[in-house]
Amino acid sequence: MADAATKDREFMSAALALARKNAASAEGGPFGAIVVFDGKIVGEGRNQVTTNNDPTAHAEVVAIRDAAKHLGRFDLRGCVIYTSCEPCPMCLAAAYWARVDKVAYAATQYEAAAAGFDDAYLYDELAKDMGSRQLPCVQVKTGDEDPFAVWLANPNRIPY
Amino acid sequence: MADAATKDREFMSAALALARKNAASAEGGPFGAIVVFDGKIVGEGRNQVTTNNDPTAHAEVVAIRDAAKHLGRFDLRGCVIYTSCEPCPMCLAAAYWARVDKVAYAATQYEAAAAGFDDAYLYDELAKDMGSRQLPCVQVKTGDEDPFAVWLANPNRIPY
Repeated sequence: MADAATKDREFMSAALALARKNAASAEGGPFGAIVVFDGKIVGEGRNQVTTNNDPTAHAEVVAIRDAAKHLGRFDLRGCVIYTSCEPCPMCLAAAYWARVDKVAYAATQYEAAAAGFDDAYLYDELAKDMGSRQLPCVQVKTGDEDPFAVWLANPNRIPY
Repeated sequence: MADAATKDREFMSAALALARKNAASAEGGPFGAIVVFDGKIVGEGRNQVTTNNDPTAHAEVVAIRDAAKHLGRFDLRGCVIYTSCEPCPMCLAAAYWARVDKVAYAATQYEAAAAGFDDAYLYDELAKDMGSRQLPCVQVKTGDEDPFAVWLANPNRIPY
């Protein structure tokens, strides 16, 4: 029986194969990811930003959505994501929301930056106070009823 | 003709109506968002995490995907997102990737926290160095060919 490190490398090779397939076909960025549960691949994703016209279709997000669909639950406890590259803030936050146990990555952010994918800017921006960010975020107040009040008054609400 | 502030409130009311609809139906969290381009609503989203078993289906992500699909492009320059609540890090990063011009929000993070949605933890985690985060992120090296090398050698690649 393969030891944990060998299995890790096998799963990472599967993620890297998806990344190379994308890189060669130019159907999206050179990124791939898989989600593993109980020793089996339950989700996979390739970057599909440009092919699907979906700026959120990074490999990890696609793989998380695929795994959640296949497992039939919105909570991926017990799962590990294997991704060809360190996740960007969107994908890392998605991994937190999915409540995966672990993220395994192959390439570092420095290798990604050398290939033209520099996520450092995004990490810097998110760490700033709202007023200091490049993307303007402004509050708009209306006289409408508060959705949170409706939510808290609803006994059928499903927390997540 | 309505002035900009009046239009802002109208669009925000539309996002809040989606949020309240979700809150009342318990089909997902109490969040709604719309994307506006050239004075028209081109995308909308309600939180669908629990209904669709999709941990990434926050209102803003759903609205961004919807707008990109309708506009037929992965770059939402010129668009504004109106969201019922300050975005979480996943949604804010998605807004950056989508390259929207502006994010307008109604409820503050403090109001969200009072309703049980506390994104402060996630902002804190993302600002930390990888080794200090609660979610373990580990590098797994294999002997596989580098997807970035394949990408850089492909003349048909589409940057994004």
